[in-house]
Amino acid sequence: MKELHVSLDNVGDVLPDDFTEEQKARVKTLFYKKLSLEAHSFYKGKMQTFPKAGVYGFNWFNAWYTPGVSNISTTIRDHNELSFSLTNRGNLVGIVSDSTRVLGDGDVTPSGGLGVMEGKAFLMKYLGGVDANALCIDSRNQEGQPDPSIIIDFVKRIQHSYGAINLEDISQPNCYEVLDTLRDKCDIPVWHDDQQGTACVILAGLINALILAGKSIDQVRIVFNGAGAANMANARLILSAGAKPENIVMFDVQGPLNPSRKDFMEDARYYAHKAICETTNPNDYQSLPEALVDADVLISCSKPGPGVIKKEWVSTMAEKSILFACANPVPEIYPYEAKEAGAFIVGTGRGDFPNQINNSLCFPGILKGALLVRAKKITDQMAIAAAKAIAEYSRKKGIHSEQVICKMDDMEVYPYQAAEVATEAVQSGISRIQKTWQDVYDEALADIRTVRSMMEEMMKSGWIQQIPQSILQDSLQWAIDELHRQQ
Amino acid sequence: MKELHVSLDNVGDVLPDDFTEEQKARVKTLFYKKLSLEAHSFYKGKMQTFPKAGVYGFNWFNAWYTPGVSNISTTIRDHNELSFSLTNRGNLVGIVSDSTRVLGDGDVTPSGGLGVMEGKAFLMKYLGGVDANALCIDSRNQEGQPDPSIIIDFVKRIQHSYGAINLEDISQPNCYEVLDTLRDKCDIPVWHDDQQGTACVILAGLINALILAGKSIDQVRIVFNGAGAANMANARLILSAGAKPENIVMFDVQGPLNPSRKDFMEDARYYAHKAICETTNPNDYQSLPEALVDADVLISCSKPGPGVIKKEWVSTMAEKSILFACANPVPEIYPYEAKEAGAFIVGTGRGDFPNQINNSLCFPGILKGALLVRAKKITDQMAIAAAKAIAEYSRKKGIHSEQVICKMDDMEVYPYQAAEVATEAVQSGISRIQKTWQDVYDEALADIRTVRSMMEEMMKSGWIQQIPQSILQDSLQWAIDELHRQQ
Repeated sequence: MKELHVSLDNVGDVLPDDFTEEQKARVKTLFYKKLSLEAHSFYKGKMQTFPKAGVYGFNWFNAWYTPGVSNISTTIRDHNELSFSLTNRGNLVGIVSDSTRVLGDGDVTPSGGLGVMEGKAFLMKYLGGVDANALCIDSRNQEGQPDPSIIIDFVKRIQHSYGAINLEDISQPNCYEVLDTLRDKCDIPVWHDDQQGTACVILAGLINALILAGKSIDQVRIVFNGAGAANMANARLILSAGAKPENIVMFDVQGPLNPSRKDFMEDARYYAHKAICETTNPNDYQSLPEALVDADVLISCSKPGPGVIKKEWVSTMAEKSILFACANPVPEIYPYEAKEAGAFIVGTGRGDFPNQINNSLCFPGILKGALLVRAKKITDQMAIAAAKAIAEYSRKKGIHSEQVICKMDDMEVYPYQAAEVATEAVQSGISRIQKTWQDVYDEALADIRTVRSMMEEMMKSGWIQQIPQSILQDSLQWAIDELHRQQ
Repeated sequence: MKELHVSLDNVGDVLPDDFTEEQKARVKTLFYKKLSLEAHSFYKGKMQTFPKAGVYGFNWFNAWYTPGVSNISTTIRDHNELSFSLTNRGNLVGIVSDSTRVLGDGDVTPSGGLGVMEGKAFLMKYLGGVDANALCIDSRNQEGQPDPSIIIDFVKRIQHSYGAINLEDISQPNCYEVLDTLRDKCDIPVWHDDQQGTACVILAGLINALILAGKSIDQVRIVFNGAGAANMANARLILSAGAKPENIVMFDVQGPLNPSRKDFMEDARYYAHKAICETTNPNDYQSLPEALVDADVLISCSKPGPGVIKKEWVSTMAEKSILFACANPVPEIYPYEAKEAGAFIVGTGRGDFPNQINNSLCFPGILKGALLVRAKKITDQMAIAAAKAIAEYSRKKGIHSEQVICKMDDMEVYPYQAAEVATEAVQSGISRIQKTWQDVYDEALADIRTVRSMMEEMMKSGWIQQIPQSILQDSLQWAIDELHRQQ
């Protein structure tokens, strides 16, 4: 076997030459899963806490702790807003999940969500210079059911320790009530990344994909596959951005959303679904294949593929069709299949395929922007500002059908987004403090640069140990063997 | 004014020559409070989060996050104990407080406790190599009262994200119910530092002070001033270590604890107080001054001084008297006063006086030891093992009346403690995994050394900015001026 680089930039090249595209895609998934297990075990997790203030001698603990710190307690007691500047609260996000719908794996028990939430905290720090804690909780009530009121109560009690809350991987319909209640009741931003984050990046991708296709958002026909938290938020933001309800249709496993859907029309918790049922699909499409004929855009946030979206359906779509297949960990259709069927632009949630449409491009920047001006909320306008910022920044860098938006290794997209989001917050009067676009940009960029430099030094000095090459090779070999076993 | 070193090791020397001892003590407190405010504001808090795993290229996020991380979710779902080794849970403590009794400042609102809890997290990392998050919560019920059942529910829901819980600064009697319930219901250690931590260090100090005084714990007469969480735990641990109930008396603001105390005898929440009422003070001392005549030891955990313990009372104590005055931020009597009154050994909670009797010497080591063997609880036996470890280690280093136990700048006391605590946990069968004394010692020491080296590099490279000298000088000048204003 050829040697795999520690950067993992040649995974595709070291696979056996006789592998088909499908085999390559499948073996990559197997490889990353195996590597993930081995690497997490090697490092014993991904995130730690660390001092950010100097210790020039032990007498400094008289200032950082007792007796001096008493002044911090009483000062914050008397001027609560100073908690954002006298503690790390102003740069700290609580990532709250009840682990009941973690990626594509469903309920994985409270501790089971920790790997994903630590991953989120990792991305927040590395990409956005934002600190975060993974807070995976047991949300079950006395009947043993996940209870939205328990998550709501939890967040209301803990909000005083955080500058913002990032809700994550909470099953629906609980997630709607949780988000809407907390956005109303909390005095800090409450962000549900699965709803707002996905929508923000999808919108950014759609804006640029339509430009490349030479189409206009108010004229294209858009099919949504999946009526979960992500697609509901996608539809809301895309409609806000100019799409027409009469050009939209949404499907879930029960069929199309329309006025005959009693599950949504008669259950108050599904008020957002009800609005979709009432206002879209005037042509009364009954099935996904039927709706896809001549459709311009397919946005699928449903269940892990492959095979959920069929190649023959994609081939019936309009010229220059745009397809976002966002299920994790495996998209509803592999990009190579969709391209073979004639799709013009294909995006997925995966970093190992072109056009990654992933929240990671958004949440570190939007949260950094909100934190830097101490916003009280993150409004839809701020999310749209973030989407436009991503799209605009990407166009400046150059876009094409395999790269409609920049990738997450583009360091400057985050401060750019943060500055746009903060500016929107300041202009709409929901920020606690005022800062200029440039100040936010500079501060965010400096924070991110510090993280990158420190990481480099830590890896160089051995405080973060080098991952053994054997773990890489063994994981790859295991994945290849496993693929053969499965066939 | 003479130049203050950035190490703060010459604070005493740069004060005006004509200051009395009392003025020096008071100005130091004022200085550290002012410096604390300025330094917290300069650094915007004290703790951050940081990656502990390598990123050798952006493809690594396919392992740290989606799609690879899915394997972490499902593996933990199926083998929950692996959450301790596949995430940072195994080295992570949640510091939970409702901020209702923060140091000597009482209820400071939930956010008001963040400075102290971040300070605690700072010490845990710097001294013990343990990661920690500050979780300050609103524990008020619908009547607006702090409610122990709310704290209990909070910890039970969040325990899945942590390797241990450190309860902190919860007002009594709530703290007893919270600790006792959670120790019983949780599957991870729940430690109440104000109770068990203080007791552990007091016991360590007492063991060595008695050796220096040539007295024996089963023969000395001990007076406790204060019947709060700290002194109740002190009495319990000191009795376990061999003191005789008939040689003990405890006072609070209502007078001595004895069978006529209806507040404790008839309120089930005060079961521990009731035991003290029933078994101690056979001589029926009615007042603190009366009880102190010929007493060998005074342990005071009451309210901030000075002037709470009077010099003339101390002068009536037995030869070679031992006095621990532990109120924060100012001890019940200044050490120089107690010494003038003839005390042999005087300890306080303060780092700027000799004989600091402070939890900081204990909780980082005991928690590290418990975490390294994944203990399910921290028993009183483990706390006593920690106390004996501190005392023994200190004797090896050399003790005298101004230093009965080592100081917190002694790096190796923590791994030594951790190893003793872990060994006790393994031997009593409450650890999830087994490790040798030496393995625990080596692992803890390596972690602590890494923190120190990284901090040094961060300060050298400017990732932690140097504190401006002007902040030091201005804070000192302010403290001197403020002292004059107050007089």
